Amino acid sequence: MQTLEKVLKGIQPLDQQVLKDAESRVDFLAKPIGSLGKLEKLAIQVAGITGSIHNQLDKKCTVVMAADNGVWDEGIAITPQHITAVQTISMLKGIAGISVLSKQAGADLRVVDIGIKSDVNYPGLVQRKIRKGTRNLAIEPAMTHDEVVRAIEVGIHIVKDLVDEGYKILGTGEMGIGNTTTSAAIVMALSGCSADLAVGKGAGLTDEGLINKKSIITKALNYHSINPSDPIDALAKVGGLDIAGLVGCFLGAAYYKIPIVIDGVISAAAAYTAFKISPISKNYMIPSHSSLEPAYERIMKEMGMEPMLLMDMRLGEGTGCPLAFSIIDSAMAMMDHMGTFKDIELDTDYLIDIR
Amino acid sequence: MQTLEKVLKGIQPLDQQVLKDAESRVDFLAKPIGSLGKLEKLAIQVAGITGSIHNQLDKKCTVVMAADNGVWDEGIAITPQHITAVQTISMLKGIAGISVLSKQAGADLRVVDIGIKSDVNYPGLVQRKIRKGTRNLAIEPAMTHDEVVRAIEVGIHIVKDLVDEGYKILGTGEMGIGNTTTSAAIVMALSGCSADLAVGKGAGLTDEGLINKKSIITKALNYHSINPSDPIDALAKVGGLDIAGLVGCFLGAAYYKIPIVIDGVISAAAAYTAFKISPISKNYMIPSHSSLEPAYERIMKEMGMEPMLLMDMRLGEGTGCPLAFSIIDSAMAMMDHMGTFKDIELDTDYLIDIR
Repeated sequence: MQTLEKVLKGIQPLDQQVLKDAESRVDFLAKPIGSLGKLEKLAIQVAGITGSIHNQLDKKCTVVMAADNGVWDEGIAITPQHITAVQTISMLKGIAGISVLSKQAGADLRVVDIGIKSDVNYPGLVQRKIRKGTRNLAIEPAMTHDEVVRAIEVGIHIVKDLVDEGYKILGTGEMGIGNTTTSAAIVMALSGCSADLAVGKGAGLTDEGLINKKSIITKALNYHSINPSDPIDALAKVGGLDIAGLVGCFLGAAYYKIPIVIDGVISAAAAYTAFKISPISKNYMIPSHSSLEPAYERIMKEMGMEPMLLMDMRLGEGTGCPLAFSIIDSAMAMMDHMGTFKDIELDTDYLIDIR
Repeated sequence: MQTLEKVLKGIQPLDQQVLKDAESRVDFLAKPIGSLGKLEKLAIQVAGITGSIHNQLDKKCTVVMAADNGVWDEGIAITPQHITAVQTISMLKGIAGISVLSKQAGADLRVVDIGIKSDVNYPGLVQRKIRKGTRNLAIEPAMTHDEVVRAIEVGIHIVKDLVDEGYKILGTGEMGIGNTTTSAAIVMALSGCSADLAVGKGAGLTDEGLINKKSIITKALNYHSINPSDPIDALAKVGGLDIAGLVGCFLGAAYYKIPIVIDGVISAAAAYTAFKISPISKNYMIPSHSSLEPAYERIMKEMGMEPMLLMDMRLGEGTGCPLAFSIIDSAMAMMDHMGTFKDIELDTDYLIDIR
C-alpha cells in the first residue's frame, strides 16, 4: 500500500513523446486540422496518460464516496441527513441515477462508506469508514489532520484496487447531504473567492436558506483562518470525508496513470484540491458536465478546464461520468478507426466524372 | 408518397397528455425535482413525440445529404470541390468521422446523393440527385422553386423509408464543400442578422478569405432581395440541395412523429428553415453540440434552444448526432430504470442505526 507521501513523490507528467505521436496521428486523419475539437484532445490526453496511442477503455468504474457532514446541524440543506445512507443503498440496489446511467454506459460502480453517520449494511458496500460523519465545521475543525490523510489514502487504495482489477477509466461521485456547503467552503478557502461566487442552492434551498448557507460558510472561514497554500489544512477545517476520499482518487489516478473523470461541483472541488496538492495530477483529469453550482465555474477557471456537457444537471452521485464515458469512447474510436488522408486518396477511383 | 403540401398540413403538436404523464413520472423519480436537467427534458420530449412514456430508441440512423454548391466558384472555401464526392465515399467505406462515431454509438448511416457535381458510384449510396450541384448564388438563384420542393420531398421520403424500416431516432448530417456559405446566407435571409453574426471560417479560411466570404454573401442577399417570410424562396435563391434535403428530413420527422437530432451549423440552418416553414416541427428536434460557426448561436437563439454538448467540433457530416444518441439513450434509461420515492422508502430497513 502506498502512503500519501509516496504517491505525491511518484506522480509523473504525461508521456511527452506519446503526446506528440498521438497529435501527429490525429492531424493525419482525414478531416480539417482540429475539426473534431475535444474528441481530438481527449484522444491525445488519454494517449499521454496510458503511454499508448490506441486505447480501449472498456472497463469503466465510477467511485462513489459516501459520508455525512456535521455542518448539516446548521440548516444548510433541506434534505434529511439519513438520506445519505438511504441513497447509498439505492445506488447499490441499482435504482439511483448513477446506477442507471452507469449500467447504460456499460460502467461499474464502487460505492464506499467513508463516513456515513449511521451504520449501513448492504451487499457490495465497501466499508472504509473513517468516522461517523465529520464534526460541525461551523464550531470546530471538521476533521483532524490524521483523519484527512487517512481518507485520502482510502481513495488512493480504492484506485489501486480498481487498476489491479483491470479498469481502464474511472469516474468520481459522492453521496453526502450538506456537501455543496463543504465544497463551496473548500473552493473559497483555496481560491480566495467570495461566497457569492461559490455558494449555491444545492438540492433546492430557498432564497433565505441560501443567505444562511453563505453566512455559515463565511463565518466558519473567518474563524478557522486557513492558509490557502495548505489544502490538507483546508480539508481538515471545512472539508468532508467524501471530498477527501475523492482527492485520494484523483491523486491515485495520476500515480497509477489512469484517466479519471470529474463529475459536478463536489467532485470538482476534490479535483481542485488534488490539483492544489499536486498540480500535475490535473493532466490525468477529464471534466464532464457543467454544474449549476457557482463554485464549479470558479474551479474550471482556476484549473483552465472546460466541461464537454451542458446538461443543467445538479444531482451529483457521479452522474456526469457515465455520460462522459460514452463521449470518451467515441474519441478512442476516432483515433482507432478514422481513415487518414492516404486512405481517402484511393477513393477517387469511384468517381466517374470529376471536373 | 406524401407531398410537401400534405406533410405541412399533417404535422401535429406533441401529445399534451403524454407530456404531462411523463413529467409526473420524472418528478416522482428519487432525486430533487429537475436535478437531472436536460435528461429529464429529453425523456419528456421523446414521450410527447412517440406517445409513450417509455421508449427504446434502439434503431438509430443519421441521414447525410451530399451536394455541391455553385458558389464554390467564388472562392468561399479552401477545400477542392471534388472532396464532396471523395468524403461521401469515405462515409460509405466506414472511415469518415461520421461513420466511425455512428458505429461506436450503434447507429446506422444513410448517405444520399442529392446533388453531388460528379457522378458517384459506390455501394450503399442512395441516388436522389436533383441536379449536378446548384447554380452560383452570387450571380443567379441557386435553384428553381421546383428543385427546392423536390429536394425537400427527397428528405421527407427518406424519413418515411427509415420509419418503415423501424428506426426510432434520426440524426442529420451533410457533405458539401461551400455549405457554411449557403447556411450563413439562409440564416441572414430568414433572421435578418448581419454577416458578422452569421459568417465564419468554415473548414479553415484565412482572415482575408472570411472578408471575401462575407462580401459575397452580403452582395448576393442584396441582389436577390428575399422575403424573410418565404423560406422556400430563400432556399431557392441562396440555399443548397443538402440543406433543402435536410429541411425535408426535419419536416418528415415531425410528420411521422420521430425524434430528430440537429448536428452543427448546416444541419441547424436546415432545422431553422423547417421551423420557419412549420413552427411546430421544432418540437420534434433535439439539438446536439455547439458549432463554432457564428450562425449556429444565432439559430439557437431564434429557436429558443441550447445544445447539450460543448465539443468545439466543426467537422459537420452529422458528427454531433451519434454523440447525442448516447446521451438520449441515457435519458430513456433514467425514465425506465430509476427508482421512485416509493422504492427508496423501503431502503431504511438496511440502516442499523439512524439518528
